[in-house]
Amino acid sequence: MPGHRVCLAKETPLRLDSGVKLHDVHIAYDTWGTLNADKSNAILVCHALTGDHYVVDPHPITGKPGWWSNVVGPGRVIDTDRYFVICSNILGGCMGTTGPQDINPDTQKPWGLEFPVITIGDMVRAQKLLIEHLGIETLFAVAGGSMGGMQVLEWAYQFPESVFAAIPIATAARHSAQNIAFNEVGRQAIMSDPDWCEGDYHSQDKHPHRGLAVARMAAHITYLSETALTRKFGRSLQDRDAVTYGFDADFQVESYLRHQGSTFVDRFDANSYLYITRAMDYFDLGQHHDGQLARAFKDTPVRFLVMSFTSDWLYPTRENREIVHALNAGAANVSFVEIESDKGHDAFLLDEPEFHKVFEGFLEGCAEHRGLQRKPT
Amino acid sequence: MPGHRVCLAKETPLRLDSGVKLHDVHIAYDTWGTLNADKSNAILVCHALTGDHYVVDPHPITGKPGWWSNVVGPGRVIDTDRYFVICSNILGGCMGTTGPQDINPDTQKPWGLEFPVITIGDMVRAQKLLIEHLGIETLFAVAGGSMGGMQVLEWAYQFPESVFAAIPIATAARHSAQNIAFNEVGRQAIMSDPDWCEGDYHSQDKHPHRGLAVARMAAHITYLSETALTRKFGRSLQDRDAVTYGFDADFQVESYLRHQGSTFVDRFDANSYLYITRAMDYFDLGQHHDGQLARAFKDTPVRFLVMSFTSDWLYPTRENREIVHALNAGAANVSFVEIESDKGHDAFLLDEPEFHKVFEGFLEGCAEHRGLQRKPT
Repeated sequence: MPGHRVCLAKETPLRLDSGVKLHDVHIAYDTWGTLNADKSNAILVCHALTGDHYVVDPHPITGKPGWWSNVVGPGRVIDTDRYFVICSNILGGCMGTTGPQDINPDTQKPWGLEFPVITIGDMVRAQKLLIEHLGIETLFAVAGGSMGGMQVLEWAYQFPESVFAAIPIATAARHSAQNIAFNEVGRQAIMSDPDWCEGDYHSQDKHPHRGLAVARMAAHITYLSETALTRKFGRSLQDRDAVTYGFDADFQVESYLRHQGSTFVDRFDANSYLYITRAMDYFDLGQHHDGQLARAFKDTPVRFLVMSFTSDWLYPTRENREIVHALNAGAANVSFVEIESDKGHDAFLLDEPEFHKVFEGFLEGCAEHRGLQRKPT
Repeated sequence: MPGHRVCLAKETPLRLDSGVKLHDVHIAYDTWGTLNADKSNAILVCHALTGDHYVVDPHPITGKPGWWSNVVGPGRVIDTDRYFVICSNILGGCMGTTGPQDINPDTQKPWGLEFPVITIGDMVRAQKLLIEHLGIETLFAVAGGSMGGMQVLEWAYQFPESVFAAIPIATAARHSAQNIAFNEVGRQAIMSDPDWCEGDYHSQDKHPHRGLAVARMAAHITYLSETALTRKFGRSLQDRDAVTYGFDADFQVESYLRHQGSTFVDRFDANSYLYITRAMDYFDLGQHHDGQLARAFKDTPVRFLVMSFTSDWLYPTRENREIVHALNAGAANVSFVEIESDKGHDAFLLDEPEFHKVFEGFLEGCAEHRGLQRKPT
């Protein structure tokens, strides 16, 4: 059965960081593998900005393989013969979990910009409701890259007793000025589109597809390294021998970007893009500790594996190392590996043997420590 | 007198790389200092994508100081007590030189997308007409940063006998895939704006201000280093103590970017932005030599000073060094200096003492070699 949807926070509303109380929160999720008898083998996978819970199975709209189908599955890094894997669409998303495109129960109209601004902390509290609903007290591991890594850090921060191991990948403990800037460009592209209708496009049967496509194109550049772009495209022309002296997509890299933009709008909601990027911008784990990240993780019982990629300029090693320094200062159990890769930020989604090997090895060590059997019986 | 405008290519049209012949080309320009008797002290300054010939004097629209007023002037790096300095608005620009916003003499309507697509080579040939108009056979130097540097390289390539010294700064001999990608995002932002009207907005009394602002915002991020953005803004909030849980410019970096976008549209034409970025994308000096840049500069008599900045990720040192390698292979007289700066690409516009010192020293050496007097008499 490809995916589930559950309504939570029915009696007790979910209290958001903004102070707003959200009730009847729907969460779309999927699971793979089998939960063992003592419920100690659950791994929560957290998805990135434009991801969803189609981790393994083909995406229902694009038909493409699940976004981490190379990592999660039988015999894979996150071995579904061994672990019970859960992934839910984040709060504010557009693939089944409550978000701005849903109906506001109070008005019976789509939320639009009436939807409350959410945070990474809110996303994680919604995930916690799901985990409790599944009867799981402690997750064996929480793993994710990019914004998924922010959720991993937030899990370890908010619920250290409910997480045995945390694997934040290619991420940061607080969003940098440059990354806020890139997100703001994306938001302005969307909000500049007249079809955005001040966020009310669903009611008016319009869609800010042009603005959303531009936002995606700008963001997509940041996901690749310059080396990867050069290797993939260089200055190669698209189905032509010479430039056309016009504004068509003469270069392959232009054609590629346009394709990224135009296919994205079929599967993503523009307001969700605004809300989720906002949550990323607001993310700053040290903010409640006078900016001292180390204090956020003081004496944490969670085991950490932090991984970064050498050519990732969106969440560079430097920012991942800040997490490690804070964890070290907080006397945490932490491993850190910078993976050599020229593929940029997207490397966490790609077949990077060293990345997978380190990831698998860390899980193996934790499983032994946790006393998990090689295979669930 | 702040600026001149001259009509050239009246009898013999300017033949563009596209094959189109452009006649009655207007060129807006300004000069500073005095041309000496043997016309040997002329320096042509080439401006970047959004620059113009307001190098020294305040900009007529923004009122801001000229874009290189810290470099060009009496006693400055390019000493107007000594040199005769010329800068013209580029072909395709929007500050007085013929471009897409002008009236097409054949139709008596604004050119719009009927304007021919131009190249850096075309820009330089238009500048050559101006230099000839001014009665100058050989320029003592041609200098410019970013797209200005491309023009410098093109000058040395097309007219090696007319250039004594060339100073390309923070530039590249061919536009990279990543830079084409960023330009394409800007173009798509403009062309997605319904007020762009397929390029015909001038006739319809509309302006694609929203799209152009988004294009500027995206580009502006690339002009600064992450370090500079962090130092300048970090995660500081804009006139508030806490985030607002909304989509206002909570962060200073957002406010700054929005300001960059909204002020840009007052001084720049959207179609010019399309045409000029296209010229940059097409730039590839080695293309007529099987990609062998060295062959483009074989046995060149021009003296070169190539300068890059350590934190410039738009035109990184690596790309500037490619120029140097090609010049070396072509047995050229070339100096190369990588300036230590954390200010990113914009460093070439800023007060960077080492940059200015190297620049001035090189000019001094060339002036001695050229037999220029300390002051024109």
